[in-house]
Amino acid sequence: MPRILTVGAAQLGPIALTETRAQVVERLIAHLREAAGRGCDLVVFPELALTTFFPRWFMDDQAKVDSFFEHEMPGPDTQPLFAEAKRLRLAFYLGYAELTVEKGQTRRFNTSVLVDKQGAILGKYRKIHLPGHAENEPWRAFQHLEKRYFETGDLGFPVFDALGGRIGMCICNDRRWPETYRVMGLQDVEMVLLGYNTPVHNPPAPEHDRLGWFHNQLVMQAGAYQNATWVVGVAKAGNEEGVPMIGGTQIIAPTGESVAVAVTEEDELITAACDLDLGKSYKQSVFDFARHREPAHYRLIIESKGARRQSPDAAK
Amino acid sequence: MPRILTVGAAQLGPIALTETRAQVVERLIAHLREAAGRGCDLVVFPELALTTFFPRWFMDDQAKVDSFFEHEMPGPDTQPLFAEAKRLRLAFYLGYAELTVEKGQTRRFNTSVLVDKQGAILGKYRKIHLPGHAENEPWRAFQHLEKRYFETGDLGFPVFDALGGRIGMCICNDRRWPETYRVMGLQDVEMVLLGYNTPVHNPPAPEHDRLGWFHNQLVMQAGAYQNATWVVGVAKAGNEEGVPMIGGTQIIAPTGESVAVAVTEEDELITAACDLDLGKSYKQSVFDFARHREPAHYRLIIESKGARRQSPDAAK
Repeated sequence: MPRILTVGAAQLGPIALTETRAQVVERLIAHLREAAGRGCDLVVFPELALTTFFPRWFMDDQAKVDSFFEHEMPGPDTQPLFAEAKRLRLAFYLGYAELTVEKGQTRRFNTSVLVDKQGAILGKYRKIHLPGHAENEPWRAFQHLEKRYFETGDLGFPVFDALGGRIGMCICNDRRWPETYRVMGLQDVEMVLLGYNTPVHNPPAPEHDRLGWFHNQLVMQAGAYQNATWVVGVAKAGNEEGVPMIGGTQIIAPTGESVAVAVTEEDELITAACDLDLGKSYKQSVFDFARHREPAHYRLIIESKGARRQSPDAAK
Repeated sequence: MPRILTVGAAQLGPIALTETRAQVVERLIAHLREAAGRGCDLVVFPELALTTFFPRWFMDDQAKVDSFFEHEMPGPDTQPLFAEAKRLRLAFYLGYAELTVEKGQTRRFNTSVLVDKQGAILGKYRKIHLPGHAENEPWRAFQHLEKRYFETGDLGFPVFDALGGRIGMCICNDRRWPETYRVMGLQDVEMVLLGYNTPVHNPPAPEHDRLGWFHNQLVMQAGAYQNATWVVGVAKAGNEEGVPMIGGTQIIAPTGESVAVAVTEEDELITAACDLDLGKSYKQSVFDFARHREPAHYRLIIESKGARRQSPDAAK
């Protein structure tokens, strides 16, 4: 019997700075209701889905920064989302800015949670590949201060037995790094959920801008195929506070094929009935890791952070 | 001043079992002459470019197997290739079956060499990701006995300062594994040369057959983009001894874009003038490894060969 998980990728259009959490949650709930009507089991929302993408601004005032963070999940503003999802018996993935106090230290992460159909958080991920920079760079048309406002995630790339399958999570820039998918692939992941906010314009390298959509699809398709997993990539799209973003929400099969693709830059739900066994024939043939991987030759991947010019394995 | 390396990707049509080394070398030399006329510095030939793809047959007689191997490089049959390349001042990459005696042991590898414009071998690579199987599987329409006829390569993924750039090599199935490109990317590779023989039909998983061309392009484009390197992928194409192969020879820029693509399944030369500095803006921004990679979270990539079901980094 095929293991079908019907997924809704719930793209969001822009969220204005003036929009309240309650207003955003109404938009998320509208997505949930449409998803329920289309037979979904699971709804995937974008990265930092409750506010505008605030790392685009340099802020000196930490209290102002912290106003974009959630101090509890669910909290008063997000409780209605959890309640409606539970009522509709929908699981969901939600990205948000997490502020937590651990051992007396305030810590801030770019986080996602996986919530089961009963409204319980069954898994959490904290973004590992933080892009951008840590200091104000006023020459930019807009900032990308994730390295300032967040700590590097400290939970690895966990994979959860959930919804009848093996579900992993990552966030935005994580998707460009093959290590992200591989660490989950080595845990036999069957579906990777990921939300993102990707501007069209990359201030330090504007010559890449024409390729944003292509690169987005390329890395997600390669990660899916090379690990024989579904990938659900969900954008915040459109022109948000003067910064256009790429959109391109899509659901990608373990074959590497995009089986559902958003065509707007607004709130838009796309769905697919995903057979969690579809990757099996890859995992048992070309990508039978136990038979074909050669980790003895991969050491540099963990031994080196940056690129270096000497060849440690130079030819004899 | 841009560092331009003009490359010819010298696709081969099928090589018949009855074709002699001398006949094949004539075809390779024809490629060299065309490449010289088109301004090339470097010509890339396929994997196992001197004979038919012999791992498709099970052979009991080791002498018969060994007849497909080169005992020296260059040897009597390949000397004219080296001589003509030197006369034309062309560097080249050549894939061949290597038989060598080391410390009294006969060893066999699926090998490529990089030969400089003076005809000297400046680098060697021995294929690490051997696909297929080691025992006869008569139910298959054809065999894929690389795991029988070759040892796993023992030279790592070396990168060479050559031709004004940083040049790496891999072979065929290596290209499907992101680790291949990453280990070279961590050595600041600027161009990866690779030859392949890929059948259209995969006997253990025929449901993948319709995607062969797509997967070939996907993995090479992703490897190029994610490591900001040129990738030159060169096929043996066409129907060889009753086994159709996918073709799809292409030259891929560090942007991930295929800038030259073969359109036949025969001997066909495609060329591109490759700016070795084109990857720099990626290496200095989105893929500045020293700034953005997080190796502490990649340990599983070398600690585990196969996929496993426990999550070592499970969420707190």
